[in-house]
Amino acid sequence: MNTLAPIALTMGDPAGIGGEISLMSWIKYKAELPPFYILDDPSRLDRLARMTDLKCRIEEINSPGEAISIFKRALPVMPLSKPVVSLPGDDSNTDSKMVVESINNAIDAAIEGTASAVVTNPIQKHLLYKAGFPSPGHTEYLGLRAGLKHPPIMLLAGPHLRVVPVTIHLPLKDAIAALTHSGIVHTLKLTVDTLKRDFGITNPRVAVSGLNPHAGEDGHMGREEIDIIGPAISAAATPSCQIYGPMAADTMFHQTAREKYDVAVCMYHDQALIPMKTLDFDNGVNVTGGLPFVRTSPDHGTAYDIAGTSKANPLSLLSAIKMAAKISQHRATFVGRMAGD
Amino acid sequence: MNTLAPIALTMGDPAGIGGEISLMSWIKYKAELPPFYILDDPSRLDRLARMTDLKCRIEEINSPGEAISIFKRALPVMPLSKPVVSLPGDDSNTDSKMVVESINNAIDAAIEGTASAVVTNPIQKHLLYKAGFPSPGHTEYLGLRAGLKHPPIMLLAGPHLRVVPVTIHLPLKDAIAALTHSGIVHTLKLTVDTLKRDFGITNPRVAVSGLNPHAGEDGHMGREEIDIIGPAISAAATPSCQIYGPMAADTMFHQTAREKYDVAVCMYHDQALIPMKTLDFDNGVNVTGGLPFVRTSPDHGTAYDIAGTSKANPLSLLSAIKMAAKISQHRATFVGRMAGD
Repeated sequence: MNTLAPIALTMGDPAGIGGEISLMSWIKYKAELPPFYILDDPSRLDRLARMTDLKCRIEEINSPGEAISIFKRALPVMPLSKPVVSLPGDDSNTDSKMVVESINNAIDAAIEGTASAVVTNPIQKHLLYKAGFPSPGHTEYLGLRAGLKHPPIMLLAGPHLRVVPVTIHLPLKDAIAALTHSGIVHTLKLTVDTLKRDFGITNPRVAVSGLNPHAGEDGHMGREEIDIIGPAISAAATPSCQIYGPMAADTMFHQTAREKYDVAVCMYHDQALIPMKTLDFDNGVNVTGGLPFVRTSPDHGTAYDIAGTSKANPLSLLSAIKMAAKISQHRATFVGRMAGD
Repeated sequence: MNTLAPIALTMGDPAGIGGEISLMSWIKYKAELPPFYILDDPSRLDRLARMTDLKCRIEEINSPGEAISIFKRALPVMPLSKPVVSLPGDDSNTDSKMVVESINNAIDAAIEGTASAVVTNPIQKHLLYKAGFPSPGHTEYLGLRAGLKHPPIMLLAGPHLRVVPVTIHLPLKDAIAALTHSGIVHTLKLTVDTLKRDFGITNPRVAVSGLNPHAGEDGHMGREEIDIIGPAISAAATPSCQIYGPMAADTMFHQTAREKYDVAVCMYHDQALIPMKTLDFDNGVNVTGGLPFVRTSPDHGTAYDIAGTSKANPLSLLSAIKMAAKISQHRATFVGRMAGD
């Protein structure tokens, strides 16, 4: 883990807000941010800066290492193999290959160690599917590229709450059918590992939700808690963490309840993301847990409707860049501690 | 609607916190509350008051009307037909018949008009099922007693949010299967009526959630939005309300999103109750919409673990009593307006 290397920021969908929140982050917040570079087309960023009146000095680099010294005076840009032509808000162009190239180059740099972490700008998934992108989203694609046998986890972290959904982008009835003992155990173990390795929490406290109203009320309203979730919690228990539940999901997220755990593991997308986005809408960060490299991302979409207007809020991207740096440091210490044991 | 009549408060489960939060409400807050009486055993309330060191003057009444003049000097209690023996926290006793009698007597008073509203203390449902209680909960039982063909709605109201779940106490997979065009249309219409009649909102704005992540993302993650929810929204539309959706549930509940609607109608229990209890845990009120009489309830359970310790927070019960009075006034004005049209 080379914590001195710069952070690699992907282009994301060039019709979305990724470009302008990246420019804003460098212009306004460079003094408080770790050095990063963006994998993008320098000419399109220049055009975007002029169009949005965001005065940003841009400098092309040939290797990630150059970003460190340049970062104070200009936004370092590592070019892609082809020009990018999409305009903000217009998703009719076909820069999908460059969107994927940007992600791939960032992953390569992180695996080689020339980048300390990957921060991804939002993509429009259905456009990438048409271009042959093989995964439902970034998280699964990163797992594939890293050669993982089991998918990594999506951990959302904000100032008020951390959550991990066991199932993610599935229709709700398929998400229920997809809940398995081994899937929940895998998610719980990876969640505990991620809190230790990436967040520096020695003895993580993990609250696990039930699936049904009132966590099934002892089997009166569903049996998944008794048949699947409860046994999975027992199976994932180790002396160096506290895993408890299944809890009634509706009473898990108020302030007093949140003080009792470091992360809530939930059974499906909305159960995790409703409390997260209710409490931390503007500054949540998406962290991928279980990868050999560090990856974070802002917790929002491409926002075509406001792309090109400079109205986008860069707060979540800023939080993602800062958290990537923090996780890299935690991992360096953690690896160091393991090696010294 | 006799808004001058007192409010009837049920006993609830005598092993739960209902008794002590009722005593606390009268002791500390009688000056700011509308007159109410409780349908309970006066001796057991006396015992409870001594046990919990809650100094409360209790006076037995023979008819609800007496409560009005007594309320300032004592908590008016309308006795039940038999003594109640359960102790706080101990659910082994069998006062279930008296729990149901208390509910029935309150309903009778509200239907006769000798009570202006019913406020129910929390019950332990599975104990009542064993005693032959024919409904999943208060809401459904009140609908049955009122002779409604379709069930009433459960509207939860707090300072930050109002929500209505389309399905309530069902295992999640059964809740998905129970979503029907007519069920959603019925809930939407009753929600609009309730906001007009009970909350005095002339042109209600209703946001409707989707079922699946990202509201199905145009059919990529589930079809219920396209096949059921969207058409139901169109069918429920009238010129005197705004109903919109299906919306992605995770981005519906942050502050800016909430400003755009008066109520959120959600597809299942946790989708509605997670944001509600995350934002308004201590002071949410459960309102039954669509009944011929007014009914509210605190938005919490029996809390056996703290019963008898005076640690329970009476805030939700206080809010429920105040809201019952407010709804009675709105209904009186609304009925008046209808009659005058």
